[in-house]
Amino acid sequence: MAKHTSEDFQDYYPDDVAHCYGCGRLNEQGHQLKSHWEGEETVARFTPKPYHTAVPGYVYGGLIASLIDCHGTGTASAVAARAEDWQPDVEPAPPGEIPRYVTASLQVDYLRPTPLGPELEIRGVIREATDRKVVVAATVSAEGETTARGTVVAVRMPEGMIRP
Amino acid sequence: MAKHTSEDFQDYYPDDVAHCYGCGRLNEQGHQLKSHWEGEETVARFTPKPYHTAVPGYVYGGLIASLIDCHGTGTASAVAARAEDWQPDVEPAPPGEIPRYVTASLQVDYLRPTPLGPELEIRGVIREATDRKVVVAATVSAEGETTARGTVVAVRMPEGMIRP
Repeated sequence: MAKHTSEDFQDYYPDDVAHCYGCGRLNEQGHQLKSHWEGEETVARFTPKPYHTAVPGYVYGGLIASLIDCHGTGTASAVAARAEDWQPDVEPAPPGEIPRYVTASLQVDYLRPTPLGPELEIRGVIREATDRKVVVAATVSAEGETTARGTVVAVRMPEGMIRP
Repeated sequence: MAKHTSEDFQDYYPDDVAHCYGCGRLNEQGHQLKSHWEGEETVARFTPKPYHTAVPGYVYGGLIASLIDCHGTGTASAVAARAEDWQPDVEPAPPGEIPRYVTASLQVDYLRPTPLGPELEIRGVIREATDRKVVVAATVSAEGETTARGTVVAVRMPEGMIRP
């Protein structure tokens, strides 16, 4: 972990909520998705494994949904951190830990088959942001072509979800 | 594989499209989800692995989306098989291979955290069925409590998706 020097939002999740299979830096079996700001958009890049297949040659839809989901909650955390005290123009990474969000709803449109092999790019745009809720529109693209788009409604993680 | 005696839809996917990470019987690394009829509903059961975590104690949302997705496309295949020549009252399993569907869109509402540990039950109800498209409403429950619900719009797999 490169905390305090990383640009990746997920590196700032508190240790007790950094185990998500999709994006937790402490989940050794998981995808460890990493998201960062590029201007006003957020970006993650991920290369699926050969076995993440739908039918031979294409990425399975569940992985695409997972990438959109975790990039959405990561983006929500970054938005909240920025709103609180983080100035991305001054320091690229947020100071210390950032608030954790969970998914209230997820919607994905599969526009065309996603080729298995190339690195995928997941881009997020913030559609709505309040203290409690952040709505992120996301696209997934391969070799410059958008193959899926989706929307994540992320809400601040309830305190009761964190087990002592 | 228990083809011709199995009740599970995914056992009847043609060999060249049975590699899905979520539900392909030929994907050794995958989830190998299995779905079957119970009356007019379809049912799958799946026990997540300990590392399929969101935050400690709960199932990560990407897996729940995957289960709904694959159960939805499996249900679509079974609906199509039934419409063509399969009489579920006479023989529990469809004869030979069944048509394969892919996901056009997926929507999931996460109603409450899904506990990690218990077997999950995914139930599907057919909302709409034409030759080309099947819409399936699904729920995910743990220990009798529904934790997520979703909708899958599945369309007949384009022939061009199958690589020779």
